[in-house]
Amino acid sequence: MVRKLKVAVSGLGRMGARHARHFLERTPRAELVAACDPDPKARAWAKQCLEPYGTVIYEDFDEMLRHPGLEAVVVSGITSEHAPQTSRAIEKDLHVLCEKPLSTDIATCQRVVDAAKQKPHLKVLCGFSRRFDASYRDAWNQIDAGDIGRATVIRSQTCDKYRDDDYFVQYAKHSGGIFVDANVHDIDLTLWYFGQDSIVKSVSAFGVVARYPGLKQYGDVDNGIAVVEFWGGRIAYYFSSRMMMAGQTDTTEVIGTHGKLMINASPANNLVEMHEPNGIRREIAQTYYDRFEQAFVTESNEFTAAVLDNTKLPFKLTGAVQAVKIGAAMTKSLRTGKKIDFDELGNEIEEVQKARL
Amino acid sequence: MVRKLKVAVSGLGRMGARHARHFLERTPRAELVAACDPDPKARAWAKQCLEPYGTVIYEDFDEMLRHPGLEAVVVSGITSEHAPQTSRAIEKDLHVLCEKPLSTDIATCQRVVDAAKQKPHLKVLCGFSRRFDASYRDAWNQIDAGDIGRATVIRSQTCDKYRDDDYFVQYAKHSGGIFVDANVHDIDLTLWYFGQDSIVKSVSAFGVVARYPGLKQYGDVDNGIAVVEFWGGRIAYYFSSRMMMAGQTDTTEVIGTHGKLMINASPANNLVEMHEPNGIRREIAQTYYDRFEQAFVTESNEFTAAVLDNTKLPFKLTGAVQAVKIGAAMTKSLRTGKKIDFDELGNEIEEVQKARL
Amino acid sequence: MVRKLKVAVSGLGRMGARHARHFLERTPRAELVAACDPDPKARAWAKQCLEPYGTVIYEDFDEMLRHPGLEAVVVSGITSEHAPQTSRAIEKDLHVLCEKPLSTDIATCQRVVDAAKQKPHLKVLCGFSRRFDASYRDAWNQIDAGDIGRATVIRSQTCDKYRDDDYFVQYAKHSGGIFVDANVHDIDLTLWYFGQDSIVKSVSAFGVVARYPGLKQYGDVDNGIAVVEFWGGRIAYYFSSRMMMAGQTDTTEVIGTHGKLMINASPANNLVEMHEPNGIRREIAQTYYDRFEQAFVTESNEFTAAVLDNTKLPFKLTGAVQAVKIGAAMTKSLRTGKKIDFDELGNEIEEVQKARL
Amino acid sequence: MVRKLKVAVSGLGRMGARHARHFLERTPRAELVAACDPDPKARAWAKQCLEPYGTVIYEDFDEMLRHPGLEAVVVSGITSEHAPQTSRAIEKDLHVLCEKPLSTDIATCQRVVDAAKQKPHLKVLCGFSRRFDASYRDAWNQIDAGDIGRATVIRSQTCDKYRDDDYFVQYAKHSGGIFVDANVHDIDLTLWYFGQDSIVKSVSAFGVVARYPGLKQYGDVDNGIAVVEFWGGRIAYYFSSRMMMAGQTDTTEVIGTHGKLMINASPANNLVEMHEPNGIRREIAQTYYDRFEQAFVTESNEFTAAVLDNTKLPFKLTGAVQAVKIGAAMTKSLRTGKKIDFDELGNEIEEVQKARL
Repeated sequence: MVRKLKVAVSGLGRMGARHARHFLERTPRAELVAACDPDPKARAWAKQCLEPYGTVIYEDFDEMLRHPGLEAVVVSGITSEHAPQTSRAIEKDLHVLCEKPLSTDIATCQRVVDAAKQKPHLKVLCGFSRRFDASYRDAWNQIDAGDIGRATVIRSQTCDKYRDDDYFVQYAKHSGGIFVDANVHDIDLTLWYFGQDSIVKSVSAFGVVARYPGLKQYGDVDNGIAVVEFWGGRIAYYFSSRMMMAGQTDTTEVIGTHGKLMINASPANNLVEMHEPNGIRREIAQTYYDRFEQAFVTESNEFTAAVLDNTKLPFKLTGAVQAVKIGAAMTKSLRTGKKIDFDELGNEIEEVQKARL
Repeated sequence: MVRKLKVAVSGLGRMGARHARHFLERTPRAELVAACDPDPKARAWAKQCLEPYGTVIYEDFDEMLRHPGLEAVVVSGITSEHAPQTSRAIEKDLHVLCEKPLSTDIATCQRVVDAAKQKPHLKVLCGFSRRFDASYRDAWNQIDAGDIGRATVIRSQTCDKYRDDDYFVQYAKHSGGIFVDANVHDIDLTLWYFGQDSIVKSVSAFGVVARYPGLKQYGDVDNGIAVVEFWGGRIAYYFSSRMMMAGQTDTTEVIGTHGKLMINASPANNLVEMHEPNGIRREIAQTYYDRFEQAFVTESNEFTAAVLDNTKLPFKLTGAVQAVKIGAAMTKSLRTGKKIDFDELGNEIEEVQKARL
Repeated sequence: MVRKLKVAVSGLGRMGARHARHFLERTPRAELVAACDPDPKARAWAKQCLEPYGTVIYEDFDEMLRHPGLEAVVVSGITSEHAPQTSRAIEKDLHVLCEKPLSTDIATCQRVVDAAKQKPHLKVLCGFSRRFDASYRDAWNQIDAGDIGRATVIRSQTCDKYRDDDYFVQYAKHSGGIFVDANVHDIDLTLWYFGQDSIVKSVSAFGVVARYPGLKQYGDVDNGIAVVEFWGGRIAYYFSSRMMMAGQTDTTEVIGTHGKLMINASPANNLVEMHEPNGIRREIAQTYYDRFEQAFVTESNEFTAAVLDNTKLPFKLTGAVQAVKIGAAMTKSLRTGKKIDFDELGNEIEEVQKARL
Repeated sequence: MVRKLKVAVSGLGRMGARHARHFLERTPRAELVAACDPDPKARAWAKQCLEPYGTVIYEDFDEMLRHPGLEAVVVSGITSEHAPQTSRAIEKDLHVLCEKPLSTDIATCQRVVDAAKQKPHLKVLCGFSRRFDASYRDAWNQIDAGDIGRATVIRSQTCDKYRDDDYFVQYAKHSGGIFVDANVHDIDLTLWYFGQDSIVKSVSAFGVVARYPGLKQYGDVDNGIAVVEFWGGRIAYYFSSRMMMAGQTDTTEVIGTHGKLMINASPANNLVEMHEPNGIRREIAQTYYDRFEQAFVTESNEFTAAVLDNTKLPFKLTGAVQAVKIGAAMTKSLRTGKKIDFDELGNEIEEVQKARL
């Protein structure tokens, strides 16, 4: 009989519950042996939906880590627990798939990366879901094949559908701000397409509050724009928004010296178009998950395969630190109204100068 | 000074008034010297809109033909006058641009063609507007260049926006039926793309009345489908409708042995897309003229140039007879419920057999 | 622990192997307990890819039917075995998911339906994959909600990518012809959207051989067109082709009295567009499976759920007979060059008359 | 007889020759009475193409201004002559349609505006062609109708097709840089959609040289990005490029609090799509003129009508100064690597501070 990877999921909120189901139902080489959540409601759901399939439900994360035979953990709870839980799992010699971001704090991110480096036999993956999306991969293959020459300018956006409640305001308390929460995906894509070793030269960010005044108390905005220059003549520019009316609108454009790739320039939820008295209409994905569901499933499967077969993960953990670093610089630029400059080693010049004094 | 062609327009209804304006304002090498219409309302419009620019307004067509220096006539009145007026203009040695169809009766069409043949120095053009459309021409150039191999199957449709009045019913009295009125454009395109000398092998037509019960009294339908086989292994199939909700929807597909061309597969009125709470929407052309306005202007200019420079017209008058012949066979097939077969000379087999008896 | 459905797959050719994997890996409530194929190569594949997961591999279908605890069978071998195997499985009191068509012969189809009727506790499904496709379902929901008024005209096509080998010619030996093989999907959609009890009034079919002369020996064509009238004022028209250069091109259009739905009017394989020196390019699905993979997975899951929960299948088995009957009439019309008429009970008039004599 | 406006065109280079033809052939209420160019080659063209229609050809601009009965002048020569010629024409009491930009120098722009203010009976128009484009106007009408709520974020780009010669380098000598030359259109659109009285708060610009190293000597780039904040919570961000492979790619996005408009999100040159072995392809406009030809013709006609009927021009001349001011700030930001801040009166803060010292 084939061996199946014994996996546990920590955190059964919206995204965590999905991860659980992906490992339970759509990852044939894995077995969901355990799940945990401190919230009784989440555990009640798990008892109904996971337990019948043999998954053991825990309240406590550390207790779950002691589940017999456990090999890998998915860390998917609140952001502030990402780093500590990942670190403790690594300590216990477990493979980890951690939701992005590792942390909204760069030093914390770096500590996780350092911990992972100590145990090179472990697979530790930060879940940048777009890396597993078929369209983004197709684009990467074309870039890698040289089809568009040298990738020079990237435009990328992560834009959520407007919600008529205070979800985004509540969320802003812990999200790290729109750049770290939303554009971090676009930054990660940039590092993928420009090269993981690209060194940031400057970060400038801008934003407005147009629909959710409550964001102001957290220094956050509902529409953000940022420009990132990289050493070596490359630029990326980003947009993020919480007020798209039609739905989730994540578009990326990679402009090379000899061609251009557009990803999702004309969003559509499926293949149906409606011809109506006022024109032709199509619906689009309503949520991030609507758009990237299949990518999340691919993520579960590839993480599982990398562990079982001891093969390379599709990308390195260090990129996750770099992405958060750039996202945090955006937040700083937004709040100070200043452009943040970096030296050719990628160190923030102002910080370097401060350190010298 | 350059010479300008002295043109007159007969019939100042909806389409005639447009032809008049095209020659007046958008055909630099022509001069609209005269216009006529038996209807006082139409003449009142002409007195206001054309006369100030020097156009002389007539009530009577034959009187207009005697306008000093007149060189060319646009015949654009009611369909039953197309053939007689064209013939009389030819008789007077005038060039003619006649709106389609020459007639809904094949013998009448043929007589006009015969009259034109007697005066080879005259330019006589039947106004199949799509022949002047940039997209259809682009398709033609690619077909002609061999880009799609041998054009084998054509799908083409002419579909009008639904109107909440009895226009289509009134119109059906004289239009010759939906196949002769609407699909005649598609048939003409077929003869263009398959070759003007294509010989029809069979005609089958079908239809339903779904929105305009009044059409039944005229033996007409508001949704028609027809299939035409040509000798030599080619087939065309057509759709026409009077009940499109979004607007005018004229799509053509040319399937060759080595490629395919789509013309207007995704209709749009302009380049704007609206992102709204229920999706992404675009508007489309509302009328045939909305879609083909520029083609009509090109038609005026090319007709003018062909006369002034004594160059060839872009296509032969004989095709107009062939298109009506096929359209009329569709109507016959629709009404009899029978497939109409033709021999290798393009003669209707049943008629040939009758003639033999 | 939850109960899983014990399923076996018969026939491990291209499509059968996919069914096996879908039940093995992507149908969480099912367990692939057995698989069979008379071909040693297919069994070798199964031994490598299925056996390690606990699937028992058989050479003989009837032997497999005796697999302990077996509850359901997927019949996916050669078309001529669809009906006999389905019948034998029914006899053994097993649920069946049979690939389309049940048979290319109507009487045979009918016998399977009759057998299934004898055992109403069994779920017997004929795999019309498009019924499980998200876009076709979205269209259905809108039609069902009355959004387009009365569905009046359907255009639908099933068009394969051209292959530079003799696959289509070899395939034609047993496929029943392009109408029964390809357009049967479009006919089934028509019965879904117009209503399962729609009664055919006439069938007319046409075709040419443009790329595969070898098809002629089997009375088949590589481009087919058909028109089907239904009693009650509805028409469907179809296209099928084996020579699309870009890829699989399956488009459907449902024209209602108050709106229109287009499904897959602008095919695309993913969300990437390439901007290149000669324009903007996108790739499309290469095969039927590329286009409908997710639909097949949904089919496996819904069949499984219907059996386990004893709920209704999404559509009735009788439709499969009706679809083949119409497809067979198309083939007859193509070969005789005649329109086939049916009376208001859906009986072929000529046959009724013959029977009377 | 109707009165026609007597117009002259100054400068018969690429764009000037087009203006001449538009007034000659496609502006029925105007008469092209004169044209001038210091270059003998341009005059030779004019003698062949314009003179036969009655246009008098001049070598000297000021001589042309004395042409009997002249009422209006189109200023279309080299950029450095835009302001002086416009001023002299105004002095001679002539209406002026001046190509954009009035000047690359703000003070010079302002002097022209001041001169025009002295003669309020004259129509003086700066030719921002997109203001006359049907799609941009449709967007404006929707914004003006409140369909998208408050326009909050604008993304707009002006991107030229790559040219395999040194045209862009030569052009950079006098163009004022990519922001003033290309993005000035996007800035003008922003002022239109956000309101002509929008006050700039900050300007940040970035750029790289990827294909044309020769641009560096002129302080120019071939890919530019800029962000402009406006007081009152609005932001625009721009892209310009000289290296698009597929063709001219000018896209604009207007994001409002309650909806979004996309203009030209899916560029296409016409309505034809080619299905080829490697996918579906469409061609796009190759040049700015390909994309905006009809807008230029509308511009000629509306300018003519405004003069003849003494009606308002569609937009004010002052906007042209504002657009150049923002464009020049972009160039400054690009070259200094600094964000340029403005006070609530729109004065550059650093300049205000300098002035105070």
